[in-house]
Amino acid sequence: MYKGKLFILSGPSGSGKDTVLARVLQADENITLSISSITRQMRVGEVEGEKYHFISREEFELLIKEDALLEYNVFVGNYYGTPKKAVMNALENGKDVILEIDVNGADQIRKKLPEAVSIFIMPPSYEELKRRLTGRGTDSEEVIESRLKSALGEMERAKDYNYIVKNDVLEKAVEDVLHIILSYRLKTERQQNLINEVLGKC
Amino acid sequence: MYKGKLFILSGPSGSGKDTVLARVLQADENITLSISSITRQMRVGEVEGEKYHFISREEFELLIKEDALLEYNVFVGNYYGTPKKAVMNALENGKDVILEIDVNGADQIRKKLPEAVSIFIMPPSYEELKRRLTGRGTDSEEVIESRLKSALGEMERAKDYNYIVKNDVLEKAVEDVLHIILSYRLKTERQQNLINEVLGKC
Repeated sequence: MYKGKLFILSGPSGSGKDTVLARVLQADENITLSISSITRQMRVGEVEGEKYHFISREEFELLIKEDALLEYNVFVGNYYGTPKKAVMNALENGKDVILEIDVNGADQIRKKLPEAVSIFIMPPSYEELKRRLTGRGTDSEEVIESRLKSALGEMERAKDYNYIVKNDVLEKAVEDVLHIILSYRLKTERQQNLINEVLGKC
Repeated sequence: MYKGKLFILSGPSGSGKDTVLARVLQADENITLSISSITRQMRVGEVEGEKYHFISREEFELLIKEDALLEYNVFVGNYYGTPKKAVMNALENGKDVILEIDVNGADQIRKKLPEAVSIFIMPPSYEELKRRLTGRGTDSEEVIESRLKSALGEMERAKDYNYIVKNDVLEKAVEDVLHIILSYRLKTERQQNLINEVLGKC
């Protein structure tokens, strides 16, 4: 029985990784999105279990204590993490899983699951990144500078990823991520059923 | 400067690998077909340099002597081989190269260039393979049996390949081969230009 593959998707603010991910999930019904557990308050429009599981700080700290997370992080006083069990169950059942995390979370996953495949979504150029981060022009120069600096810091770590996908034209970026995911399903270790089917009857 | 990738395509008679290859070459203008050198007589309709270079037995034996072939084989008294120089030049220039060879040729290439990526085209089932090899029904049971046996012998070695692509519906098989080829262009080591473009200006 083959096992599924874990894909990590990262990219700075301005890379458009959320939209790429949403389109990939629409296009490929055989991949499962990993749902993060987080301790911040649910916002208007958010649904429990859609993108996040909303749990209490005590519940989260129990997960940490029990080593039940693949990675976790603290952001503005709240915990964000990936529960190990759901991901491992899906992989054991031969399902591919995709995980949207930042460069630090990706580092933690690589240490625990070196066979995970990591994909970094890149803006097409520095100018375009700046244009995207400038947004509607309502933010101060200082805020924009800080966003740019943070994005550049993340992009410095793109070299730690297995693949880099340029998001210039959205459709092309989605296709590229799909090329990567679908190519892993064609690996010989995943094609044992086909080999048996064609050869087994001799 | 990144280097191109060498792809090996194999598959038994009845797998439809020739048609898959022709379609892949049509769809992807950035991959080069490696032209084999062979010593058999040119047939009607064949063009020098299109699929083969037609050379003399003496010329071929000189290539062997000079270790100028990536792989070679003898078939019905004629030599068939892959000239090393053309392939290596294309790869050095960052071009991807695809090579259609049999399981023995693939073995020879893997020893010389372990970074080559090998793809095996598989018929969808034993029944369908038999149907394809039976052809127009003009061949004797003996001839068909011998073809089947030879195809099964090749398929036993599919497990030595990196990828296995099922050729049930041609369009799907072509897409699958393209997923594999295109995914390698997204590898981080091939994206150094993009990284420089986005980060280099800071």
